Amino acid sequence: MAVGLKPAEDLLPVAGIQLASCMANIRYQGRDDLVLMALDEDCDVAAVFTQNRFCAAPVTLAKRHLKKMSPRFLLINSGNANAGTGEAGLTAVIDCCKAVSEQMESVLPFSTGVIGEQLPVEKIVTCLPTLKNLLETDGWLSAAQAIMTTDTLPKGVSKQLDIDGETVTITGIVKGAGMIRPDMATMLAFVATDAGIPQATLRSWMSEFVADSFNSITVDGDTSTNDACVLIATHKSSVIVKHDNDQTVLKSALKDVFSQLAQSLIRDAEGATKFVCIKVQQATSQEEAKAVAYTIAHSPLVKTALFASDPNWGRILAAVGRAPLSELDLDKVDILLGELTVIHSGQPDRGYTEAGGKAVMEQEEISITILLGRGQQSARVWTSDLSHGYVSINADYRS
Amino acid sequence: MAVGLKPAEDLLPVAGIQLASCMANIRYQGRDDLVLMALDEDCDVAAVFTQNRFCAAPVTLAKRHLKKMSPRFLLINSGNANAGTGEAGLTAVIDCCKAVSEQMESVLPFSTGVIGEQLPVEKIVTCLPTLKNLLETDGWLSAAQAIMTTDTLPKGVSKQLDIDGETVTITGIVKGAGMIRPDMATMLAFVATDAGIPQATLRSWMSEFVADSFNSITVDGDTSTNDACVLIATHKSSVIVKHDNDQTVLKSALKDVFSQLAQSLIRDAEGATKFVCIKVQQATSQEEAKAVAYTIAHSPLVKTALFASDPNWGRILAAVGRAPLSELDLDKVDILLGELTVIHSGQPDRGYTEAGGKAVMEQEEISITILLGRGQQSARVWTSDLSHGYVSINADYRS
Repeated sequence: MAVGLKPAEDLLPVAGIQLASCMANIRYQGRDDLVLMALDEDCDVAAVFTQNRFCAAPVTLAKRHLKKMSPRFLLINSGNANAGTGEAGLTAVIDCCKAVSEQMESVLPFSTGVIGEQLPVEKIVTCLPTLKNLLETDGWLSAAQAIMTTDTLPKGVSKQLDIDGETVTITGIVKGAGMIRPDMATMLAFVATDAGIPQATLRSWMSEFVADSFNSITVDGDTSTNDACVLIATHKSSVIVKHDNDQTVLKSALKDVFSQLAQSLIRDAEGATKFVCIKVQQATSQEEAKAVAYTIAHSPLVKTALFASDPNWGRILAAVGRAPLSELDLDKVDILLGELTVIHSGQPDRGYTEAGGKAVMEQEEISITILLGRGQQSARVWTSDLSHGYVSINADYRS
Repeated sequence: MAVGLKPAEDLLPVAGIQLASCMANIRYQGRDDLVLMALDEDCDVAAVFTQNRFCAAPVTLAKRHLKKMSPRFLLINSGNANAGTGEAGLTAVIDCCKAVSEQMESVLPFSTGVIGEQLPVEKIVTCLPTLKNLLETDGWLSAAQAIMTTDTLPKGVSKQLDIDGETVTITGIVKGAGMIRPDMATMLAFVATDAGIPQATLRSWMSEFVADSFNSITVDGDTSTNDACVLIATHKSSVIVKHDNDQTVLKSALKDVFSQLAQSLIRDAEGATKFVCIKVQQATSQEEAKAVAYTIAHSPLVKTALFASDPNWGRILAAVGRAPLSELDLDKVDILLGELTVIHSGQPDRGYTEAGGKAVMEQEEISITILLGRGQQSARVWTSDLSHGYVSINADYRS
């Protein structure tokens, strides 16, 4: 079902990180649903979390732990989000962290799955001795599988680069298929590199990467209670970043991994049959450009037209028309489907034909471009269509 | 398919207004798609239109005409919205108005249907002599049928009241089933009364009625290019309103007609299987309350859970959590499904049971109440669920 996306394979180990997965039967049967990730000493870790005010218990605790000490363990489960679970939920995740390490503050917990059900602590705690025995550097693909919920395939990327004769490895895994939009989503992303990137640079780079990747995608406009994205630098390679603008090749490779992982969420979005790139250009600000892009990306009418491969550009025009902009001058607006101009200077373009529009819309990967004609700023949002598959998945999810 | 709604019947004539409908074959075959409404002299008319910047040619022209003179004709077609049609579209609707009356400014044009196709002027003009011959006071139900697009049934309401021994009649018709949300929607609403309501009062009342009716509903968050709502007072009855606070019985009856018509849009929303009332209370402002209500009403995850009759309240909680409020204190938030408390003071309520939630969600009419615990203001929004029917209708609409 995923659009132009194959299951992750050949995920490379990152020196300094070991992983293990197992079946804790939290919700799913017959598949792994619990992951333990162990970090060597001296790793640097940056993390961003959901902006949703009803954030889940593991998010509350992970933020708290990050402030106290450098993480040594990540404990991740699927099948239960431990969100909307009140004080009992917080106690549950604390118990899990304590079971992982006496220094419970060294454990970052992550959960994804159904909201509002209590986490089965016992099932998780029982698995921990086994998980610790299974820890290995080669566990990334299994972890990518274990964290899946409505994902149709495991998602991950690895890259290796040669920097001054030294090999640097980057590996990232991600899960999430719905409830995706900024800021963050029901998505968990874990990216690691063996390069030596100091904490401050790691944070600064991460903000930049996330803005153009995980914070520029949407499936349905819903923001999850559990989203988290973690970037780890293990410092095992001799490639060392000294400051923000050092090692641009490494930075660019990391950025590309974030971008690919974010794209893979949309390609595997719930019920997706299209991968859609919405570009808004010539805006007065990036915020304005993003607001227009999201108005289009969230329009159920645009999304159902995309599903139908129907060049019903009137719906795009109507979405632009209701976007939260002050004083939009329609006579300056151009709208393109792929390379095809549909609206030129606010008027239907004479060269446009329905057949041409149909040909664009029948592709699996579609770009929609809006030129606002009022500035120099732009934004790009990736989204999916709204299909029967989306409704089925979300109407059946708990049953 | 419509939720708790029957086809309009027994729509009462309003003295001073005649209507006629016919088949112009604009898009549909074998059904009426063109309506002419003729108003006697001295009627007062108030109208509100879509806020979408890409408003349709008829909207542009109707606004212009309203400023120039008192309307004598309303010309309404379905099947073609005459939106996104540029200069040619404006010329087309001007030609239609000219064909209705030499004083073209006395004609208000309205269109609904597909965006981006040119209006077939000739088909409309050809019908006008016939329409004029057919004009009769009893044409409301036929008109309600002729203006339908994806509506499954004609929608209208009539009321008669006795005020000081005098009978006053109110009749309203409405169309619209998708692309509905404030401000206005792909909706056309025409309400008339034979009472004598002066222009200034008519406008003032209308703003008040619309705020609580047509501007408090949403199907999919999409706003149409063509929406319009018209309120006509024919002054044929001897009941005369002298000022804003006069005739509260009449005012309340009119308000009720607006409310019923707005509800009927949601009950007949595209693919609707549920009628959902979202109430947000204890907010610091009405705007804030509405913002929270709309965040819930637009959440595809909430809407698919409604479709599935699934008390997946975690999705409601997540929607509240991402609503655009400053500093929401979760410990003060209550969430109710029907009369059932789900979240109390930010925590799962101990009395809540899944079976209780399921019983509420299985009803056709569902209320969701959010108590924010931070003020005295409230808002109420009516919405529908997101079903396979919605996707089918909107993925197939043009085919």
